Amino acid sequence: MNKSLNDFKDHLKKIEYLKSTIALLHWDLVVKAPEKSVDYRSDMLGYLSSEEYKLTTGEAMKGFLDVFSTSKDNDDIINAMIRTAKKNYDRVRKIPEDMYKAYTIDASKSTNAWEEAKEKNDFSIFYPHLVKMVEYKRNFSKYFGYKDNIYDALLDEYEPNATVKDIDKYFSELKEGIIDILRRVEKSKVNINDDFLKTFFAKEDQKKFTEFILDKMGYDYVSAGRIDESIHPFTTNFGNKDVRITNHYHENDFVSAVFSAIHEGGHAIYEQNISDDLIGTGLAMGVSMGIHESQSRFYENIIGRSKGFWKFFFPEAKKRFPQFKNVSFDDFYRAINKVQCSLIRIEADELTYSLHIIIRYEIEKMLINGEIEVKDLPSVWNDKYEEYLGVRPDNDAVGVLQDVHWSDGSFGYFPSYALGNIYGAQLLIKIEKEIDDMYAKIEQGELSEIKSWLKENIHKYGAIYEPRILLEKITGERLKPKYFLDYLRKKYEEIYEL
Amino acid sequence: MNKSLNDFKDHLKKIEYLKSTIALLHWDLVVKAPEKSVDYRSDMLGYLSSEEYKLTTGEAMKGFLDVFSTSKDNDDIINAMIRTAKKNYDRVRKIPEDMYKAYTIDASKSTNAWEEAKEKNDFSIFYPHLVKMVEYKRNFSKYFGYKDNIYDALLDEYEPNATVKDIDKYFSELKEGIIDILRRVEKSKVNINDDFLKTFFAKEDQKKFTEFILDKMGYDYVSAGRIDESIHPFTTNFGNKDVRITNHYHENDFVSAVFSAIHEGGHAIYEQNISDDLIGTGLAMGVSMGIHESQSRFYENIIGRSKGFWKFFFPEAKKRFPQFKNVSFDDFYRAINKVQCSLIRIEADELTYSLHIIIRYEIEKMLINGEIEVKDLPSVWNDKYEEYLGVRPDNDAVGVLQDVHWSDGSFGYFPSYALGNIYGAQLLIKIEKEIDDMYAKIEQGELSEIKSWLKENIHKYGAIYEPRILLEKITGERLKPKYFLDYLRKKYEEIYEL
Repeated sequence: MNKSLNDFKDHLKKIEYLKSTIALLHWDLVVKAPEKSVDYRSDMLGYLSSEEYKLTTGEAMKGFLDVFSTSKDNDDIINAMIRTAKKNYDRVRKIPEDMYKAYTIDASKSTNAWEEAKEKNDFSIFYPHLVKMVEYKRNFSKYFGYKDNIYDALLDEYEPNATVKDIDKYFSELKEGIIDILRRVEKSKVNINDDFLKTFFAKEDQKKFTEFILDKMGYDYVSAGRIDESIHPFTTNFGNKDVRITNHYHENDFVSAVFSAIHEGGHAIYEQNISDDLIGTGLAMGVSMGIHESQSRFYENIIGRSKGFWKFFFPEAKKRFPQFKNVSFDDFYRAINKVQCSLIRIEADELTYSLHIIIRYEIEKMLINGEIEVKDLPSVWNDKYEEYLGVRPDNDAVGVLQDVHWSDGSFGYFPSYALGNIYGAQLLIKIEKEIDDMYAKIEQGELSEIKSWLKENIHKYGAIYEPRILLEKITGERLKPKYFLDYLRKKYEEIYEL
Repeated sequence: MNKSLNDFKDHLKKIEYLKSTIALLHWDLVVKAPEKSVDYRSDMLGYLSSEEYKLTTGEAMKGFLDVFSTSKDNDDIINAMIRTAKKNYDRVRKIPEDMYKAYTIDASKSTNAWEEAKEKNDFSIFYPHLVKMVEYKRNFSKYFGYKDNIYDALLDEYEPNATVKDIDKYFSELKEGIIDILRRVEKSKVNINDDFLKTFFAKEDQKKFTEFILDKMGYDYVSAGRIDESIHPFTTNFGNKDVRITNHYHENDFVSAVFSAIHEGGHAIYEQNISDDLIGTGLAMGVSMGIHESQSRFYENIIGRSKGFWKFFFPEAKKRFPQFKNVSFDDFYRAINKVQCSLIRIEADELTYSLHIIIRYEIEKMLINGEIEVKDLPSVWNDKYEEYLGVRPDNDAVGVLQDVHWSDGSFGYFPSYALGNIYGAQLLIKIEKEIDDMYAKIEQGELSEIKSWLKENIHKYGAIYEPRILLEKITGERLKPKYFLDYLRKKYEEIYEL
């Protein structure tokens, strides 16, 4: 039995090495590789992925799971190891092999079609592919199994045990609360000018300033990480001692690179602070997309767009960017928190961001439940934008075609972003209590205690505890949107003098 | 049978994907990875290497070789595919598994010991490890088998079918010829000043100038390659459309980065011009170390240190480096070809370089044949340097400890460098005949016909034809050091007015 547990651990190690290898090949492809490398690199990745697939779902894994998945008297790590391996096994093995293969091929075609459709602003190019993706995912859900709602089976991939029942409750409370604040903001007489954020900021200066911030946050990008450039910022890692982020720099925009850096830095700090003991167990990763986003968005918004944070960093920014010479602290703070209903999710402010997510959630839930059809998407999308945000896309490229997620059938992913916001504010209540003079420390640029708290309460556990258990372990409560709404209300009431 | 040949090809593809993956992980480790990534990266590499080992030497490969290795009526590609796979299989399978495992562990310890010994200038630290490496390689040779000389079995790994009998003949002729020219150079009244190559050359300017040269050579480092920095320049590739070189830049030295770039560019052009048909067959690589070095050294020396080359590139260098304002073409040309007997192989000029190699060849041949013992190495080394080059190391760090090769038992590798020189000059005779007005074209910076000739005659074949067959196919002759000696004589007689 012991011998066999070690074999199981060795097997999981191999899977992790392959995953890390695939991640590194992807990183290189996006960040460093020359253009003509793409075809051969795809073949390399195809081979490595098929090896990972074999180890994850093959007979050897079945053998281990047969032995271990029924035993319950293990420690938390071993239980989580088994749980995670079994989930990965089931998510593939429950689907007929031919269907799964056809799906991976069609998903790749679908993503290509989406790219073309977005570029040409023509939903009809994407339409037949998206129909297929919905069909696949409805079928997958049936194979996975679910209790109440077919969409639950999809949610579970990104947020273990999340259900429509819970999320409907969270999101309706959130939607109502945010729209209420938003309507009041719209009536406010406070006019925020952010033109000074859109002058010229040399790329090299932006790089150095974001490094300064990341350094203070405690992301080790020198000896255990790297910062590179890519079109879309992302975080990736190969073990917990090589955690890399990327960023993009727009010279006519001060905020984009700064908040992308802080956001990715939040993801990276999570990965860097996972306990060494979990390396090779399949648990050395964030436990869910929602918890991962809670970390990145906590840093980006709750810390990164706070008054205290800029009390320290704005004087530093002034030193580096003479453009800000005549900008007052209050004007700067308001400018980076300006609320503006926009069409594009990734450009949204902290207040309206969750509405973009809720729209997507409502739509994909209806799609998977067969309550609307793919052909209805553009109009449903546009109507919801008009209703919640007061803006209506005049073409699909800036409407329903803007995000990549649905193109490969990643339904169930979007809610993670808004869940991350809710988690973050709930954690904040606890952090505020446990770190003495937290805000005074933030104003001094001392962020190390925050990092330590997150490490001790969240990061070090990797994927051991599923989101609900982790949250209850920390806060003693289930997830409650109330805290996030309280936080938003307080913040925007002050900024907009409501 | 046909079905089975396709299976064999699929199997070889997998091995190639793994090799490319391992190469990319190595490249990243040396060029990009943060310091703390090393341990986990070693584990990843260990896993991938063991997978490659299994595919290269496992039962599946045995099965394919049992079926295919006796059939001789295939085309050249299939024959070469089988030959190469069989050689890789035999080189491992002939050695008892336990011995091979112990060797890989000891080799890694030995390399660490060599590093320490070199740093501390203390041969005794390296001594016991080198004794083991010699013992391993003597044993391996016995398992591999050989006809005349035990060292032949080691040579064969780097230069297929090379033998002591042949190399003794080549190298004794070469040694005699070079020493004769060297003695005459030493008596020459021509004094070459190269101080102007050792002023200040900004790194960024060196980078741009080397890119300019590589561009003219025809190495595509934009869409099918990259140039990065590392302590020791090297070339690596993942397929033929992602061929990367590295370089190092010393700001007090004009020549180091320039000739390293040309050298690595020569290797890279070889890999980029291998036929697409060979991808995935195990043949998409240089056929031997000697042929690979012939390409890099042909570009570095025969082309890169020629008069014609600098007729074009020196005016360009003058534009970029005002330091050369008062330097005449003749002074520049002589300076980059200055002969200076030195202790360090990698700093040697074109004339004396081969003597450094011959010394190493003579020593390792004696070692493996048991004619000298490891403890004799420092004195044998120093005596030979004094005899051939007229300089005597006053410590082992600049003597017998200077090169990494012996530390992991890579005996048989060194001859490749000098063989590369001999191959190169013999190819030159043919190229001169087949390219009209070659030297006039070089003076115009037109190097594309040279690249095309090398592609059509050498590169595109990858590892299909073993060195001797390839050379005879091109030149109709066996290898002859005469051409290289003629070339050296003509060049140095002119420069040193002999």
